[in-house]
Amino acid sequence: MKISARNVLEGKIIEIKEGATTSHIVLDVKGLHLTASITNEAVEEMGLKAGQTASAVIKSSDVMIAVA
Amino acid sequence: MKISARNVLEGKIIEIKEGATTSHIVLDVKGLHLTASITNEAVEEMGLKAGQTASAVIKSSDVMIAVA
Amino acid sequence: MKISARNVLEGKIIEIKEGATTSHIVLDVKGLHLTASITNEAVEEMGLKAGQTASAVIKSSDVMIAVA
Amino acid sequence: MKISARNVLEGKIIEIKEGATTSHIVLDVKGLHLTASITNEAVEEMGLKAGQTASAVIKSSDVMIAVA
Amino acid sequence: MKISARNVLEGKIIEIKEGATTSHIVLDVKGLHLTASITNEAVEEMGLKAGQTASAVIKSSDVMIAVA
Amino acid sequence: MKISARNVLEGKIIEIKEGATTSHIVLDVKGLHLTASITNEAVEEMGLKAGQTASAVIKSSDVMIAVA
Repeated sequence: MKISARNVLEGKIIEIKEGATTSHIVLDVKGLHLTASITNEAVEEMGLKAGQTASAVIKSSDVMIAVA
Repeated sequence: MKISARNVLEGKIIEIKEGATTSHIVLDVKGLHLTASITNEAVEEMGLKAGQTASAVIKSSDVMIAVA
Repeated sequence: MKISARNVLEGKIIEIKEGATTSHIVLDVKGLHLTASITNEAVEEMGLKAGQTASAVIKSSDVMIAVA
Repeated sequence: MKISARNVLEGKIIEIKEGATTSHIVLDVKGLHLTASITNEAVEEMGLKAGQTASAVIKSSDVMIAVA
Repeated sequence: MKISARNVLEGKIIEIKEGATTSHIVLDVKGLHLTASITNEAVEEMGLKAGQTASAVIKSSDVMIAVA
Repeated sequence: MKISARNVLEGKIIEIKEGATTSHIVLDVKGLHLTASITNEAVEEMGLKAGQTASAVIKSSDVMIAVA
C-alpha cells in the first residue's frame, strides 16, 4: 500500500502502554524515539508487540517546525 | 518553551519549497528526512533558511503506526 | 500494509485539482464523495489518476460528530 | 451551522464505547462504518445515543489517500 | 448544529487571503487573532467576507500546551 | 522557541482532568476557555498545575470556520 502521507519512517516498537481506549506506542527509528497514540482496537487488530518492525506514518501538515 | 507534543526532533533544514500560501520544508534528522507543510507567513516570520538548525514538532495523536 | 487509522474506505478517484503545493482529490466511496487535500508530490509519486481505485485513510481522532 | 470542513457525512450512531476521557463512536453512513474518537464531555453534552442520526465531520487535510 | 469539537469560539472575520487551493482566514475573537487555513471551495461555498460573524471550531486533541 | 503554528495564545490553566492516558486541560485566555487534550506524560513532564501561565498552540490547518 502506498500512502499520501509524506513521512513513512520504519523502526522497531520498544514500548506499548495501554489506556482505557488509547494506547501509547514508542517506536525506535534509527535511534530516534517517536511516540504515537492510537486506539486499543488498532493495537489488537494489528497484533502489535514490543520488538516488532513497524513504521510511523505522519502527514506533512501534521509536522510543525520550531527554532530556538 | 516546553510543549506538550511528545515528539520534538532536532535536525537541519535541507529544502524549502514555497507555494501560494503553504511551503514544504524538508528536515534532515540524523539522516532521516521529515517533510513539514507550514504557512508562508511562518517561513518568513521565523526567517527559515536551508542549512539552519530546526526541530520537527509532532503530536503523538498525529503519528499513525503501520505494519507490513 | 496495515495501518492504525480506524477508517480505511475504498473508492474511485473522480477528480484531481492541483494547486501550487497542495492538490484536492475527490473520491467516490459507494456514492459518498470524500475530499482529501494532499501534497502535489504525493499525487505525482503515487501516479494518481481520475478513475483509479484508491482508499481514503482517516484517523478516528480526526473524525468529529455533529447533530442537528 | 455551515462549516469549512469539506466532508460532512450523515448517518446513524451504532455504537458508543466510553473510556476514561475519550469515547469511540461508530457511525453507519450508507452502510459504511466510520469510527470517531471524541471526548466524554462531548458525548454527554450532545446527549449522543445509539440509533441517533448524526454526521461525521472531517477536514479534507485530515483525509489521506492510499493505493494498493 | 452541535459539534463534538470542544472549542467553538465566535468572532469576526478580519482578513481573507486566498492561495491556489487554500485560503488563510484571520478571525478576531474578543481581541484575540486566530488564523485558520481552509479550502478555497469552503470560502466560496460559505460566502465568507471580511466583517462577517463566524466561529473558529477546534478539536481539543488539536490544541497543544506550551510553557516558558 | 519560535514555532510554525500560527496560533499561540497565552492564558492560565484553570482545570486539569486526568484519564488513563490522556488529560484534558482547560485554559482561560482573556476570558475565553480553550480545552486541550494532551498525554499524561506531557502533564507530568511539564509539571502543569492549575493557576499556571501557559499557552495554547494551534496550527492554522487545525482551525475550522463555521457560520450560522
